[in-house]
Amino acid sequence: MSMMWTVKVVSLGVVGLSLSVELLGWLLRRLRTGRTLNEVLFFPSEVACVEHIFTPSLHHSCLCPLPHGVETSFSRFLRRILSATSSLDLCVFAFSNMDLSRAVLALHSRGVTIRVLTDKDYAAITGSQIGVLRKAGICARCDVGSVYMHHKFALVDGRLLITGSLNWTLTAVQSNMENVIVTDEPDLVQPFIKEFHRLWMHNDPARYLHSSDQKPAHSTTRTLD
Amino acid sequence: MSMMWTVKVVSLGVVGLSLSVELLGWLLRRLRTGRTLNEVLFFPSEVACVEHIFTPSLHHSCLCPLPHGVETSFSRFLRRILSATSSLDLCVFAFSNMDLSRAVLALHSRGVTIRVLTDKDYAAITGSQIGVLRKAGICARCDVGSVYMHHKFALVDGRLLITGSLNWTLTAVQSNMENVIVTDEPDLVQPFIKEFHRLWMHNDPARYLHSSDQKPAHSTTRTLD
Repeated sequence: MSMMWTVKVVSLGVVGLSLSVELLGWLLRRLRTGRTLNEVLFFPSEVACVEHIFTPSLHHSCLCPLPHGVETSFSRFLRRILSATSSLDLCVFAFSNMDLSRAVLALHSRGVTIRVLTDKDYAAITGSQIGVLRKAGICARCDVGSVYMHHKFALVDGRLLITGSLNWTLTAVQSNMENVIVTDEPDLVQPFIKEFHRLWMHNDPARYLHSSDQKPAHSTTRTLD
Repeated sequence: MSMMWTVKVVSLGVVGLSLSVELLGWLLRRLRTGRTLNEVLFFPSEVACVEHIFTPSLHHSCLCPLPHGVETSFSRFLRRILSATSSLDLCVFAFSNMDLSRAVLALHSRGVTIRVLTDKDYAAITGSQIGVLRKAGICARCDVGSVYMHHKFALVDGRLLITGSLNWTLTAVQSNMENVIVTDEPDLVQPFIKEFHRLWMHNDPARYLHSSDQKPAHSTTRTLD
């Protein structure tokens, strides 16, 4: 009787253990899938109205001639940028896209802390939105230490990395073959956070104001906030 | 006695199960860490000799004036490209870097299948390596359907994605602020494989040769193999 009981209990234990291992594996896979976001967007994007992304109440009343209710690479990109609730760090070579400028201004007006690092030459060309952002009180710095500050990445709330070949221009969005990766994989996000911090500190105008012998010859950096 | 046995066996089962769960979690974490490669490289890279990467036997005998034995972003990038054993698919806007051209030629001579997709305008400029690759018998196609074919990604053996802001030029490597992500995360790699296939098919010169009414006005595509 005692032996029979032992056999029964051990058998039950083995079955229970097998089921637990299966269940645990399934749960870990589910958690892993749910935890890490990895999305790839390709461009050129279809041209469609994005007004409803800025003002959801207008979804059914926008009268512009563009297609409505179409989910595109650009609308997904825009939603990711607009998902920021605490901070948005931008490191972008060319920034002239009006919709993206509007998105950054909208985040700024909601109290999201914005930092923009850009290329000194591109910041000065006609159509660049850097001046518009600065006029609104957003802190923008120009890289002065390289031939081109060629990055095109954004960090949303210090946890989401948006990076790729896409400059923030209308041509890039609507006409070029481009790619953008959206990920919250820490192994990818953390190095970009560290690099942004390094570049932001390195291009602090105060460094040059207090150390004139280190000031680069073509420095055009300034901040308005 | 029977009750005591049951209690002992059940207790042992619970302890065993707890340990199994712990062990399984640890193993899964180990497997996960070992399985997924996520690396970020930032540029500009230090300038150092890369001769030993091409010819390891010369490690101690290269007499060039550059620093030797230094691991840089570029040397890591080069090693990743040279790790290809079966295929290398390149989708690069600007390709004029001589070391990277040499790497692609070396892979070609080892029997690695190379496909290069590039921008039609940049392919024609002085210094572009596209002509050099074609002369060696490598298949290179030019994108004809967009303003710029602005991608800068490589797929190694259909499993490793190398992508970022970095064009394959000397300025990008040595002078610009740039980033490159190296990953084998399937969620990121698979969309790029699919997009490469789509672009490769879309820019097949045979499509235009057999359908003259669809031939783009500025088509300069051709293949030499």
